[in-house]
Amino acid sequence: MTEAIRGVKTWRGMTVDELVSGMRGCAFGAGRLAKAVDIYEEMLNEGATKFIAIAGALVPAGMRELIAEMVRARYVDVIITTGANLVHDIIEALGAHHYKLLHSVVDDPELRTQSIDRIYDVVVHDDAFARLEEFIRSVLENLSHDSSRSRSRNHDHSYTIREMLEAIGRHLSDPNSILKSAVDSHVPVFCPAIADSMIGLHTSIYKQMESTFHVDAFDDMKELIDIFCDAECTGALILGGGVPKNFLLQTALVAPEREDGREGFDFAIQITTDTPENGSLSGATLEEAKSWGKIGRDAKAVTVYCDVTIALPVIVAAVQTRVR
Amino acid sequence: MTEAIRGVKTWRGMTVDELVSGMRGCAFGAGRLAKAVDIYEEMLNEGATKFIAIAGALVPAGMRELIAEMVRARYVDVIITTGANLVHDIIEALGAHHYKLLHSVVDDPELRTQSIDRIYDVVVHDDAFARLEEFIRSVLENLSHDSSRSRSRNHDHSYTIREMLEAIGRHLSDPNSILKSAVDSHVPVFCPAIADSMIGLHTSIYKQMESTFHVDAFDDMKELIDIFCDAECTGALILGGGVPKNFLLQTALVAPEREDGREGFDFAIQITTDTPENGSLSGATLEEAKSWGKIGRDAKAVTVYCDVTIALPVIVAAVQTRVR
Amino acid sequence: MTEAIRGVKTWRGMTVDELVSGMRGCAFGAGRLAKAVDIYEEMLNEGATKFIAIAGALVPAGMRELIAEMVRARYVDVIITTGANLVHDIIEALGAHHYKLLHSVVDDPELRTQSIDRIYDVVVHDDAFARLEEFIRSVLENLSHDSSRSRSRNHDHSYTIREMLEAIGRHLSDPNSILKSAVDSHVPVFCPAIADSMIGLHTSIYKQMESTFHVDAFDDMKELIDIFCDAECTGALILGGGVPKNFLLQTALVAPEREDGREGFDFAIQITTDTPENGSLSGATLEEAKSWGKIGRDAKAVTVYCDVTIALPVIVAAVQTRVR
Amino acid sequence: MTEAIRGVKTWRGMTVDELVSGMRGCAFGAGRLAKAVDIYEEMLNEGATKFIAIAGALVPAGMRELIAEMVRARYVDVIITTGANLVHDIIEALGAHHYKLLHSVVDDPELRTQSIDRIYDVVVHDDAFARLEEFIRSVLENLSHDSSRSRSRNHDHSYTIREMLEAIGRHLSDPNSILKSAVDSHVPVFCPAIADSMIGLHTSIYKQMESTFHVDAFDDMKELIDIFCDAECTGALILGGGVPKNFLLQTALVAPEREDGREGFDFAIQITTDTPENGSLSGATLEEAKSWGKIGRDAKAVTVYCDVTIALPVIVAAVQTRVR
Repeated sequence: MTEAIRGVKTWRGMTVDELVSGMRGCAFGAGRLAKAVDIYEEMLNEGATKFIAIAGALVPAGMRELIAEMVRARYVDVIITTGANLVHDIIEALGAHHYKLLHSVVDDPELRTQSIDRIYDVVVHDDAFARLEEFIRSVLENLSHDSSRSRSRNHDHSYTIREMLEAIGRHLSDPNSILKSAVDSHVPVFCPAIADSMIGLHTSIYKQMESTFHVDAFDDMKELIDIFCDAECTGALILGGGVPKNFLLQTALVAPEREDGREGFDFAIQITTDTPENGSLSGATLEEAKSWGKIGRDAKAVTVYCDVTIALPVIVAAVQTRVR
Repeated sequence: MTEAIRGVKTWRGMTVDELVSGMRGCAFGAGRLAKAVDIYEEMLNEGATKFIAIAGALVPAGMRELIAEMVRARYVDVIITTGANLVHDIIEALGAHHYKLLHSVVDDPELRTQSIDRIYDVVVHDDAFARLEEFIRSVLENLSHDSSRSRSRNHDHSYTIREMLEAIGRHLSDPNSILKSAVDSHVPVFCPAIADSMIGLHTSIYKQMESTFHVDAFDDMKELIDIFCDAECTGALILGGGVPKNFLLQTALVAPEREDGREGFDFAIQITTDTPENGSLSGATLEEAKSWGKIGRDAKAVTVYCDVTIALPVIVAAVQTRVR
Repeated sequence: MTEAIRGVKTWRGMTVDELVSGMRGCAFGAGRLAKAVDIYEEMLNEGATKFIAIAGALVPAGMRELIAEMVRARYVDVIITTGANLVHDIIEALGAHHYKLLHSVVDDPELRTQSIDRIYDVVVHDDAFARLEEFIRSVLENLSHDSSRSRSRNHDHSYTIREMLEAIGRHLSDPNSILKSAVDSHVPVFCPAIADSMIGLHTSIYKQMESTFHVDAFDDMKELIDIFCDAECTGALILGGGVPKNFLLQTALVAPEREDGREGFDFAIQITTDTPENGSLSGATLEEAKSWGKIGRDAKAVTVYCDVTIALPVIVAAVQTRVR
Repeated sequence: MTEAIRGVKTWRGMTVDELVSGMRGCAFGAGRLAKAVDIYEEMLNEGATKFIAIAGALVPAGMRELIAEMVRARYVDVIITTGANLVHDIIEALGAHHYKLLHSVVDDPELRTQSIDRIYDVVVHDDAFARLEEFIRSVLENLSHDSSRSRSRNHDHSYTIREMLEAIGRHLSDPNSILKSAVDSHVPVFCPAIADSMIGLHTSIYKQMESTFHVDAFDDMKELIDIFCDAECTGALILGGGVPKNFLLQTALVAPEREDGREGFDFAIQITTDTPENGSLSGATLEEAKSWGKIGRDAKAVTVYCDVTIALPVIVAAVQTRVR
C-alpha cells in the first residue's frame, strides 16, 4: 500500500495550514507532521475526549500561553503532566520569569554562586522558587482549614492529587496560566508524580507540621479511568515521554472493550525526540502500544519525531485554521 | 587542562577491569566509561551513601539479577525507581517470565490477539499480569487488616509508598528479586510515581472497595531527605531519566549546606542515551545540575551516553574486581 | 546576557512567518528555529555567497521541488551534496517515482522478491535504477566523444566531478530537477563522494570499457575554495552531516584571513538530528567549528535540532515572506 | 519465536568474554552486543572476507591501536574509511598527538586564538596539521616523479585513490599506524571521499602546481567490487554511518547472485548511535539493506546502538578470547 511522493512547495505569505497540507505527500518527518494535523482535526471533529500528556520543560521554553489557550479552546479535555511544568506555570503566574541564555559558554558552578538555575538554554532565579514556596504554603494552610473538606469522623482533611491541584489553581489569577485555565474550563489536571517537584517538596515540609492534611497517591485514578470509560471516542496527544505518557496510556488498560469491539485510544499523536532503540517506554512506538491494547488496532496514530516546541505550535496553528 | 590520548588495547582473556582501565586514556564514550568506574570505585571506598535512580525497562531487558546483587552487596543504599521495574521484578518473582523476540518483523495488532504485550524486543503474556493482580490484592488485604498499622483514633490504615513497597517485598521469596533483596538488606525503595504502574492500577481498584486503606503521596519524602542530610558523603548512580532521576536530584535541593561548604551530591554517575538538546530533564547534563546545587561544584561526576544494559554490567564487573 | 521568555501564540489563518516570528521569545528548538530564519534573512539581505550542504535522503522524502526552487531563486549559490540525492533527483527527472509506504509492518526480504528498495518509509522500484543506468551511460558516451574536451596531447577526455555533474544536468529537461535547476542557474554542484552512489557505480563500469575518460578526485577543490575566497561575505546552510557538511566547512580552512580579520563563514545554519555526544563531525556544534576557524568567531550561527524535512520548509516559507 | 530472558551476572575478575557471553540471554543493547560477538566469531571461523567501514573520529578518541591490531590480525581484510581517520592516523604516526580536554567549560573562540582545534572532548594543535602538510607534499612529490607509474603515451602519472593511500602508507614507519599496518598486511584501504579531508586539501594544492599527477575518482571501484565477488563468503563490520557505510553496502549491489542463490553480505554487524527515524542512510537498519539485496535475506546481522568507542573494544576483546 503506497502512494507517490509529492514534493512540498512554499510561497510568500503562506499559512501554516497551507504548508502542513503541502507536506501530506512527503515522507519522513514532514509526512508524519501532516498526518498528525489530519488526525488532530478528525479527533476534534469526531468529538473525541482528548487526553494530553505533558513532559519536558515546555513552560520554561515558552509553550505556556499556547497550552493554556489549547485548554480554554477545549483542544484538550484532560491533562496529565509532570510536576515541573506546573511549578514553572505557577512561578510565571506569580509574576516571576524565565530567561533565555544568549551566550553559548556556560559556567554552571558560577551560575550557582549567582543563585541562577539553568534548564538547557533557560535560566530562572532562586527568588522565583521562594515565591512559589510562600504561595504553596498559603494554599495548603487554606486547604488544611477548609471545614467543607474535613472527614466526618476525625476532622482530618483528605484530598486527591487532582483536587489539590484544582485548589492551587483557584488561587491563581493569571489568565495565561495553564492550571488556572484548566480550573476555569473544568479540565481536570492529573499529576501522579506530584511528589517529584517543588510543589511536592513544599507540601512534604508543610505536612510535617500539619499532620491532619492528607493527599492520597491513588485516589484520583478512578476518576481518570471513569473519564476514559465514559467517553464514546478518545484521543491522546502525547508530548514527550516519562510518567505522563505511561499514565495516559495505562488508563486504557483497565477499560473494558466497547460494544463494537474497540479498545484503547481511537486517535493518538505522539511528539517526541526519543526513539525506540533503547527499549524505554518514552521512546516506544504507538504500534507497540497496540500490542497492549492501549491504542486500538485500527486507531489513527502517528509519532512525530521532533522537538515539541517546534511541532506543537505548527500543529495547533494548522488545526486552528481548519476547525472552528 | 589536557592529557595525551592513549589508545586502548585488547588481548585474549582480558578482564573487564583491564579493558575499562585501558580506556582511561581514551576520549568520547570510552573515556567516560572509564571515568565512571573510577568514580564508582572512589564512591565505595569513601563510604558514600549511594542513591540509585532506575528508569527504563531494565528488568525486562535482563538487568534484574545484576541490580539485586548490587543491592545485596550494598553497592546501593537507597533505590528510587519507576513502578514498571517493580512490576516486572514481582512478575518474575511470582514465576512468570519475560521473553526475547527473535524475529524482526513484528505485527503488534496480531500480538494483541494472542494476549502478548511487547516492550521493544521483549514480550510478556497477559497471564503474568493476572498473577500480579492476584498477588497485589492479597498483599493489600493483608495490609488493610494489619492492626499494628491502624491509626489510633479511627482505625484507618495509613502507609507511605516506601512502607507499602516494603510490605510487598516481604511477601516475596525469590532471592533474585530486587524488591525482596532490598527489604532483606534494609535498602529503602522509593517510587513517587507508583500510581503510574500496574501496582497503582490494582491498588486503585482495591481502594475503591476498602476505603480505610490510605497511602500518602508525600509522606516518605522526609525519610528520603533525612537519609541524604544524615550522610557524610553522598553518591548518585542515575540509570536513565524521568521521575527517578529528578526525584533523586531534588532530594539534594532542600538539604542545608554542610559545615565545610559542600552541597549537593559528592559523586554522580549518569548512564543515559538522552542528550541535552531537547531541553528535557532526562537529557540534562550533570553540569546543569551544578547550577541548581543538586550536584556539588567540585563533585566528581560523569555522564556515560550509552544503553544502560551495556554500560551497567561493564561498570559493575570492573568495580567488583577493584573493590572488595 | 539573557532576555525574558515570551510565549508563542497561534491563531486561525496564521502565516508561517508569523508563527516563526512568534517563536523568537521561546527557548529550545522553537527559539533556535526563529533564530535560523533571522540569520537566513540577514544572509540574503547582506548578499552573502550561500553554500548549501545536502545530506540525508531529502529527495525521496519530498524536498526536491523545494530545493530546486531555492536554487532557482538563488537562495543558494553553491551546492555540496551526497551522490544519493543526485541519483534520486535524476530518477524523478527521468519519469520514475518514489512512493510512501502506508502500512507499518514491513518485511524487507519480501520487498526484495518484489524488486522494491526501501528508504525508511519510502520505496522505489529497481526499474527506476535501470532507467538511471541507461541515462548515465548515454551521458558518459556523449562526454567521452566530446572533442571540445579532449586534452591537447593525447586525446584523453578529463573532467572534474563538478563538470561531469554539469554535463549530466544538461541532459535533463525536468524543470523541478535540482541538478537541472543548478545548471540553468549557474549554481555549481560539488559531490566529492560521487563514487559512493549509483552514478559512481555506473561510471565505474563504463570506465572499464572506455579508458580515455577521466574524472579527477581533487581537481574541482580549487574552484570551490576560490568561490569562498572571492566572496566578500559567506553563509552556510548545512542540512544533515556527513561528507557534505565537512567538505563545506573545510573549504574555509585554507582561505586566508580577510583584511578586516574575519575568517571562516560569516553566517551558518545547521539543521540536524545528530548531537555532539558521540564525537562525530556530523553532530559537532558550530561552536566547535569556531575553534578550527571554519566558522568566524563573531559569526551568526545556530543549530536547529530537527528533522530537515520539517525545519527546512518552515524556514524557507518564512524567509520567502520576508525577503523579496 | 522467543526465548526466556536470562539475566546477566557479574563477578570479581570476570573476563570480557564471560561478560558478553552472559549477556546472550538479555534483550535491548546487551542482547545485541552479545549477538554481535557471536556473529563476528562465526564470521572469522567461516573464513569470510571481512570489510570494515570506519566513520566518526575514532582515531582521536583512542581507537587507533585497536584498529591497527585488528588489521594485523586480519580481523579485517578490506578497509573503507573517511579521510579524517587517515589524517589523524598519519598525524600520530608523524609524532604529533591528540589530547583529551579535562575541563567542562570550553570557549571555542578562545581555543582558536591558541591554535587549538577541538573534536568534542579531544583537541589537537595546528602544528600537527603543519607536519601533515609537509609529509603529504613530500609523498606526492615522490609519486609524481615515480617513473614506474608513468602512463605509456604521455608520461602523466595516474593513480587510484587506493594506490595513493598505499603509497602514503609506505612512507610511514609507526607500527601502530592503521595505514602502515594495512600496507604491511596487504589490506587495501578505500576512501572514496578522500577529497573531503586535509589529505584532499593538500593534494589539491599540490596538483595546482604539478599538473601531471592524476588521481581518478572511480578507478578503484572495480578492485573493491572484484574482492567482493571473488569471496566465497563476506562479512561487514560497520562503524558509524556516512560514506563508508554506504560505499561498503553498495559494493554488494552490482555483484551477481551466487550459484546457491545468495546475494549481499552473509554477515553484518553495525555499531552506531544513529537511529532510523530521520530517514538517513547512516541510521538505516540492516533489515532495510535486505530490501536492496545489500545484505542477504538469511544473513546473520545485528545493529548495536552504542558509542563505537565502547562497543568495539568490548567486541574485539571477547572475540580474541574465542578465536585463535
